[in-house]
Amino acid sequence: MDIEAINSLPYEDFVSIFGNVVERCPIIAAAVWSGRPFPSGAAIEAAINAFIEALPESGKEGILRCHPDLAGKDLQSGTLTPESREEQGAAGLDRMGAAEVSRMTRLNAEYKARFGFPFVVCARMNDRTSIVEQLRERLGNTQAQERARGVEEVKEICRLRLQSLVHSDQKHKL
Amino acid sequence: MDIEAINSLPYEDFVSIFGNVVERCPIIAAAVWSGRPFPSGAAIEAAINAFIEALPESGKEGILRCHPDLAGKDLQSGTLTPESREEQGAAGLDRMGAAEVSRMTRLNAEYKARFGFPFVVCARMNDRTSIVEQLRERLGNTQAQERARGVEEVKEICRLRLQSLVHSDQKHKL
Repeated sequence: MDIEAINSLPYEDFVSIFGNVVERCPIIAAAVWSGRPFPSGAAIEAAINAFIEALPESGKEGILRCHPDLAGKDLQSGTLTPESREEQGAAGLDRMGAAEVSRMTRLNAEYKARFGFPFVVCARMNDRTSIVEQLRERLGNTQAQERARGVEEVKEICRLRLQSLVHSDQKHKL
Repeated sequence: MDIEAINSLPYEDFVSIFGNVVERCPIIAAAVWSGRPFPSGAAIEAAINAFIEALPESGKEGILRCHPDLAGKDLQSGTLTPESREEQGAAGLDRMGAAEVSRMTRLNAEYKARFGFPFVVCARMNDRTSIVEQLRERLGNTQAQERARGVEEVKEICRLRLQSLVHSDQKHKL
């Protein structure tokens, strides 16, 4: 879909297509639609990032809390969003043995108890080994560091989801 | 559920229970969880309203755009959230004749084309006759008036959804 087609979408279609570029936060795509027309896909990404940055810290934590656990119960029970399903699958999180799943569950629980939001990482840029390593490492950070880091990961996830939706030609690529 | 029980909920349960008090905006419940413990249900409502008010105008429009049309295609196709389904049903919007549905569809389309977000009204406080009347009347307002009015209706919908979730006793009632 090229940028001219995107700019001509009524809000309902825009939210239907872009509503999950930030996981379970359709309000964000629904808000940035107010800023159309966008000169490029990169401008949509910039508008989303600016919206996120303008939120109070509680709002940024709110975004993180809308994310599922990695290799968690939504993956096991088939209740992930299609985007998360694909990304967790690409990182191999759907092909872990019982011992690996149990270790992830323990680490996720420790992370959530410590920080009050889930561990968020761009699964597409990682595999299951590096995800477990980062989860262990990041458990040593402060809550403020993890909130900021989680938000950066949300932006990266968003960038890749947008890329798969916006036609990439020389003029308009993200 | 009384306020002590609510304050002891992990964020996942809190978002699961309160995630749709603002339609399709779980980020809002997920954000206000940061402010727990709440002295009362009214304090949860106040935190939600403050979060909404602090959003930029685009964010308020974003909330409105997460709402379904009244007597619209989500009602016809059974894809409303359970809360919206119940509210639209209580207002009699699921028992309209073909001519009435067609008139609502026309008025909703006119409203959306004019303002760039859907007509939002607290269905529980109205019936289908008063809803059509208000839709006609509000079409004469400015976009800024309708954005503000829509947000007030969102808060009223939220208040009633919260009321049905929070135990109302003398000490803690909303």
